[in-house]
Amino acid sequence: MPPRLHAVPFTRVTLADGFWRPRQETNRTTTIPIGYEQCEKTGRLAAWKYDWKPGLPNQPHIFWDSDVGKWLEAAAYSLKTVPDAELEGRIDALVALMEKGQASDGYLNTHFQVVEPDKRWTNLRDSHELYCAGHLTEGAVAYFEATGKRAFLDVMGRYADHIGRTFGCGPGQKRGYCGHEEIELALVKLFRATGEKRHLDLAAYFIDERGQAAPRYFDVEARARGEDPARYWAGASYAYLQADKPVRQQDRVTGHAVRAMYLYCGMADVAVETGDASLIAALEKLWTHMSSKLLYVTGGIGSSRQNEGFTFDYDFPNETAYCETCASIALAFWAQRMLHLTGQGRFADVLERALYNATLSGVSLDGRKFFYANPLAVLPDASKGVGENVAAERQEWFGCSCCPTNIVRLLASAGQYFYSENDDTAFVHLYAQSDADLRLGGRRVRLQQRTRFPWAGKVALRVSPETPAEFALALRIPGWCGRFILSVNGKRLKPAVVDGYARITRTWRAGDTVRLELNMPVLQMEAHPNIRMNCGRVALQRGPLVYCLEEADNGTELNDLALPRRARFTTRFEKDLLGGVTALYTRATRRRPEAWADGTLYRPAPTPRRTVRIKAVPYCVWGNRSPGEMLVWLPRQD
Amino acid sequence: MPPRLHAVPFTRVTLADGFWRPRQETNRTTTIPIGYEQCEKTGRLAAWKYDWKPGLPNQPHIFWDSDVGKWLEAAAYSLKTVPDAELEGRIDALVALMEKGQASDGYLNTHFQVVEPDKRWTNLRDSHELYCAGHLTEGAVAYFEATGKRAFLDVMGRYADHIGRTFGCGPGQKRGYCGHEEIELALVKLFRATGEKRHLDLAAYFIDERGQAAPRYFDVEARARGEDPARYWAGASYAYLQADKPVRQQDRVTGHAVRAMYLYCGMADVAVETGDASLIAALEKLWTHMSSKLLYVTGGIGSSRQNEGFTFDYDFPNETAYCETCASIALAFWAQRMLHLTGQGRFADVLERALYNATLSGVSLDGRKFFYANPLAVLPDASKGVGENVAAERQEWFGCSCCPTNIVRLLASAGQYFYSENDDTAFVHLYAQSDADLRLGGRRVRLQQRTRFPWAGKVALRVSPETPAEFALALRIPGWCGRFILSVNGKRLKPAVVDGYARITRTWRAGDTVRLELNMPVLQMEAHPNIRMNCGRVALQRGPLVYCLEEADNGTELNDLALPRRARFTTRFEKDLLGGVTALYTRATRRRPEAWADGTLYRPAPTPRRTVRIKAVPYCVWGNRSPGEMLVWLPRQD
Repeated sequence: MPPRLHAVPFTRVTLADGFWRPRQETNRTTTIPIGYEQCEKTGRLAAWKYDWKPGLPNQPHIFWDSDVGKWLEAAAYSLKTVPDAELEGRIDALVALMEKGQASDGYLNTHFQVVEPDKRWTNLRDSHELYCAGHLTEGAVAYFEATGKRAFLDVMGRYADHIGRTFGCGPGQKRGYCGHEEIELALVKLFRATGEKRHLDLAAYFIDERGQAAPRYFDVEARARGEDPARYWAGASYAYLQADKPVRQQDRVTGHAVRAMYLYCGMADVAVETGDASLIAALEKLWTHMSSKLLYVTGGIGSSRQNEGFTFDYDFPNETAYCETCASIALAFWAQRMLHLTGQGRFADVLERALYNATLSGVSLDGRKFFYANPLAVLPDASKGVGENVAAERQEWFGCSCCPTNIVRLLASAGQYFYSENDDTAFVHLYAQSDADLRLGGRRVRLQQRTRFPWAGKVALRVSPETPAEFALALRIPGWCGRFILSVNGKRLKPAVVDGYARITRTWRAGDTVRLELNMPVLQMEAHPNIRMNCGRVALQRGPLVYCLEEADNGTELNDLALPRRARFTTRFEKDLLGGVTALYTRATRRRPEAWADGTLYRPAPTPRRTVRIKAVPYCVWGNRSPGEMLVWLPRQD
Repeated sequence: MPPRLHAVPFTRVTLADGFWRPRQETNRTTTIPIGYEQCEKTGRLAAWKYDWKPGLPNQPHIFWDSDVGKWLEAAAYSLKTVPDAELEGRIDALVALMEKGQASDGYLNTHFQVVEPDKRWTNLRDSHELYCAGHLTEGAVAYFEATGKRAFLDVMGRYADHIGRTFGCGPGQKRGYCGHEEIELALVKLFRATGEKRHLDLAAYFIDERGQAAPRYFDVEARARGEDPARYWAGASYAYLQADKPVRQQDRVTGHAVRAMYLYCGMADVAVETGDASLIAALEKLWTHMSSKLLYVTGGIGSSRQNEGFTFDYDFPNETAYCETCASIALAFWAQRMLHLTGQGRFADVLERALYNATLSGVSLDGRKFFYANPLAVLPDASKGVGENVAAERQEWFGCSCCPTNIVRLLASAGQYFYSENDDTAFVHLYAQSDADLRLGGRRVRLQQRTRFPWAGKVALRVSPETPAEFALALRIPGWCGRFILSVNGKRLKPAVVDGYARITRTWRAGDTVRLELNMPVLQMEAHPNIRMNCGRVALQRGPLVYCLEEADNGTELNDLALPRRARFTTRFEKDLLGGVTALYTRATRRRPEAWADGTLYRPAPTPRRTVRIKAVPYCVWGNRSPGEMLVWLPRQD
């Protein structure tokens, strides 16, 4: 196996660009405070007082603790970057409530301790208890790393120990695992923060036990509740929960998208720690299935609202695309782990696709509103439809508010996706103006990246080791880039691109300058012929950014536009447009409406067409003007 | 107002063609017997013994009586055409049970007399009582007309009188009307069969009362049941039930498609009898809305499964098109009524579109299986999807089996749609080899039509009045026909086409021969630019028949085909194909799959294309071979 990569943590990366940095600032100054307000307003914080009584409003919900956990995680990342005594005080107060409320046996859950104390651990399939434990644990680890304060970490350690006593293969233990994966990756984080191997063992237990047959835990548990397991709404195979077979036998990505991604993250984390090649082999198969059959061009995954997840291969509805924001975030988590396991750029390509498109679209530019679903088309009157999930406008919050709390933690820690390090190589995965402080073996290496990326493909990289040293600099050549020019200190190099990276091995001295020019044309992307929705259509992509047409720029009836195959594009950076973006312009055609003025619905072809100018904007900033039509896959005119 | 037309009843039309006649024979010999068997097997017939008890199987369902009513209607039409003593005996036995079971006050309903006797007339919104009464009444009228036997008609007359005592504006009466329209048109039929004007008045009452405000009946009734009317699943406006406003104020077709069509039929029937121009004015507006915003190219209506009906203008999903068979049948009923009210061919165009396409697709060629929904596309793996209604195969029967019992009555009486008559004009609306016996005023006129329609556009019509007489022969020039040639006794005529009809007024003598040649090219139909699903696509139509591609002829991935705008078609009648149909052949292109063999989902355009031969078959016979893909709207290559 290749040497593993390690992320350069966000604490050692300073983003100073025009794309990510303003988003991080908005996240810190607007969205994180809004998350607190919303958790307060909806009772998610008050739940920790453990004083809810029947008849009172704001009954603690089974997954509220997870929202609080994710918000705490985001706040911790933010504190680490920009100290904030008031914020830290709020968190300490909340942790104090947790310490006070935690049961003497270590159990901690605002719903099951207060609302249904007799139901504790009776329905792992649906009740999200371990999922909530996982998110609180991630929050605790982040807060410990941000502040050095152990109280929250200790609370979660006690809870993890309670969980470890409750679940396992020993006598008197339940052989259960959670219907919504998350605890697995969280326990590995807890292990890494505390060094306590029992947390890693427990993560491995949950992964090994998942999907084991004879008898299946969710069946046993359902019967114990007096329920017929065959009547489970999502299907008695438990493919919805990735529990239809043991994880090492799984080779198809099924069911609920976020659950699947969190499971794979947990599997990768355990594999990194244990070196278990059988887990990595399963992950490779699952990745191949996901990336070749289930991935939207925006980096969205999970086409169906019905199961918040996957349906069948090549099923990519555009208008009703679910593409939950959380699912793209979780895909980014998984992609980063696969990248670190393998060093292969194909994982970074997906990571980039998810981060720059379907993830960022989840939050408005002002940081105040959120998409839960991220469709690839919003068309006339769809919002008047019956029974379809077409969210044409971001919302302030959700009853199930996983997405807002997920996007805040992603943005607060976004710096971790740009660089990796190991003993002998400095990796640059993503391009953005930034400074990074790497450790290669024992050596410190400073990287200073100067670029206008993602608006232009030129990158200047100053490489400054403490003392001259030989190591490799691995620069990612993205999948979308067909040609690049590379030089070191003005001297042109033509390294082979291996696994998606151009690798320059030499003795580096402080101030060495690498120049990389990634060709970044406007691409008309086709989708695989089996993707029936996109036959005869193209999606515009430039660099990592997928583009879309919006009604604000192009009027209505976007689907009646047709883009000539030989369309020539002009690009223009517009600083006042949508926070400053590069727009694409070209000519297209659309049918002359006057031919249809008599109310006829159908008539013999052809209707004359007229030429129109169209303008495309990045998908990640769609829906930040008046609500209206939007379209990613444009009809093509041959 | 123009003179009204009257249908030449099916009893005076003998179809002798290769398209309709075999379908009628299959209907008589296979489908009607299957309907009886299914009604027997499922308990729909045993329900009339009134001996169901709690705990027994086959609890009479609230709309079972309607299935029996429609089957009886079909059987009566069949008896009238081909006497069948055994069938008649079965019906008499059933009528005897009805007579015996009818309550002393005239009430008649196998569910509410046996299962929930205390709930009678407590939920007109949902319970279908008047709807069932309507279908039984239609059956009774048909059976009376077929056999002259009054028993069934008298049962329904007594029930109608009970309904008339129960509902109305008088003291002590309920000001109700049915959530599922049907009783209105049935009462007009009962009036016409019996001459009892009170039945017509009751039909008019139901129509006039519908949607009246302050208070709304469904609100009052819901509150009386202890329910909050605001919580009605389909929306408290009652647009789902066409009861959001008085019918004369309605100008948009909304809600459940079959309910809407039956209401409009009832309105037209009352208007014919009463001359109420305000009803006709409303129907004109509703028709315009339906035909210019809501009509599939197949004559299907009602795009959504969720409400079995309409959503918003120009919403025509193809794969998930609901297009209930019953809805197209009911549209044919309405279209015929509008045609008879106005004499305008635009109504016959829609009648023809519905009859030849989305109606006939509802039953298999062998008469044994049925579609409830009639989608316009079935694409790869869709049946593996989650939560979508894509019926790729016809079924033997349905729990709610309205469609099979509706198609049998339509086919058994199909002769009625071809010709109309009034005092001075013989109308030919549809073309098929047939003999018809018309009455123009007091005169008998025999029409003998010789043609291979719908496979060819040539028609020879022999016109034989009893004695030479002056009258008009009005020949419909279909909307799809751009050019035609007409002659009488070999002499070319060029009459103006007015309201869709070429009218020849002369003194006709027995044996006069009219030759009409309708140009019938393969048309590439475009859909209105606002129909976003069909932008960049065309549907093939030849004569009245819409065509589709099937996997059996064209392989899989049909959506990746592209039809050149200048495609030339060859047509070939294939007697062994699908009961004998004319197939269309041409060349198209599709992407070379080998370019995508590496599992890539997205890549820059263009993929090379290869030329392929494609074959299209009529939509009405799709799904009669192995299950597979099907596509009506084909991508176009410009």
